Amino acid sequence: MAVEGMAGLAKGLAVLEAFGTATPRLTISDAAQAAGLSRAAARRCLTTLAEIGYVTFDGKFFSPTPRVLRIGAAYTESAALPQLARPHLAAIRDVIDESVSLAVRDENDSLFVARSEGTRILNSSIRVGARIPLYASSTGQILLGALSESELADYLAAAPFPARTPKTPTTADAVAQRVKDAGADGVAIGDEELEPGLLSIAVPVRDPAGQVVAAISISASSSRVTVEEFRDRVRPVMQQHAAELGRQL
Amino acid sequence: MAVEGMAGLAKGLAVLEAFGTATPRLTISDAAQAAGLSRAAARRCLTTLAEIGYVTFDGKFFSPTPRVLRIGAAYTESAALPQLARPHLAAIRDVIDESVSLAVRDENDSLFVARSEGTRILNSSIRVGARIPLYASSTGQILLGALSESELADYLAAAPFPARTPKTPTTADAVAQRVKDAGADGVAIGDEELEPGLLSIAVPVRDPAGQVVAAISISASSSRVTVEEFRDRVRPVMQQHAAELGRQL
Repeated sequence: MAVEGMAGLAKGLAVLEAFGTATPRLTISDAAQAAGLSRAAARRCLTTLAEIGYVTFDGKFFSPTPRVLRIGAAYTESAALPQLARPHLAAIRDVIDESVSLAVRDENDSLFVARSEGTRILNSSIRVGARIPLYASSTGQILLGALSESELADYLAAAPFPARTPKTPTTADAVAQRVKDAGADGVAIGDEELEPGLLSIAVPVRDPAGQVVAAISISASSSRVTVEEFRDRVRPVMQQHAAELGRQL
Repeated sequence: MAVEGMAGLAKGLAVLEAFGTATPRLTISDAAQAAGLSRAAARRCLTTLAEIGYVTFDGKFFSPTPRVLRIGAAYTESAALPQLARPHLAAIRDVIDESVSLAVRDENDSLFVARSEGTRILNSSIRVGARIPLYASSTGQILLGALSESELADYLAAAPFPARTPKTPTTADAVAQRVKDAGADGVAIGDEELEPGLLSIAVPVRDPAGQVVAAISISASSSRVTVEEFRDRVRPVMQQHAAELGRQL
């Protein structure tokens, strides 16, 4: 089975990744389109995933079961970074009274790997496992700063980037400038670049060698915070904990 | 490729599930043993998973990458239960000042699908995606109560269950009694049944039809809380939020 069998593994994982916030339920056609597979391949994947309990089928739609969490636990339960970050995220949350998250780069996205939840009803929907495009997020501006010049150039070559709001930086120059500013300031502020009414702030976590390995971030409604509050009041607390976390790595 | 290809998918997922708290890094032999595969099959799975970015290889050990979180996000980002539960878990946490979790049944385990993190340093390691055997957990005693008589009998037929501590219920009778008591009281208390020094409390979340669909739980060090505090002070707050959550389902 060697090669073909393992092609099935890659296809099945692509189908599982196709489920998400905007697509909690998928038909065979939906899954084929989202994962770039033929209908026949998507059907085989979904049927197998249903047999082993990763998805359920209601006659038309497939949906992921809680069992998919077993896969993510492989990382959140064992990797050092999210484990070490948790007390810091909780401590920041208790000072700020907003949800606090930790993100790493996963290809062209910020991927959230830990989170300390606040109590606000109006709250960002960023959960562990959520992804946001690097160019449109404050975490992304921090994480892009970890790339070498040639890696960054490769990333920027994909510009223009789709506008998420009128304030999204969509050109290579605009994104590069934000990455440069974030590197110089040690902080990135996202002012409605991802979504109208959403402010975010991110600071880098550096390992003992000085390399940026993650970003700590807070997103909040612009009706609750201002850019100035983020910059003056919230940033020092985040930077202190980011530095402590970095020393633990 | 049909059948064999999809066998590869099942095997690859079994390998990914083999990573966890106790086994953050695996050799090919480790993975083969944990997933019940031949060495050759485990090697093919791990090589493919490394190619598509789900694991890294340091020359000897394979480790999961953050990318595995994309799979779990399929559930946490889209399913109604964890989404609706979050504000309730956070509200309980703020009253109690302990981490609060939501669990559902996944085969013979309690599987934690949402969590609101406290700030304590000495904290249970139960994260989203973590699993605990039903017979040895307060959540399990609640969730076993959702089974039909014949389903429960099937589960109990696997007794005796491995003792986790001297207080673990290991016989069918002992587990059945705890399930019965939890059903009558509307609460389960785990008094060092899973781990010495660990107390836990769980209450059921019932859907509008009255069916138990999940358990809300708190685990804490016995140096911080007593069984009486859990039962008298913590339980009413948990039951109130469990009832509110149930009405939202």
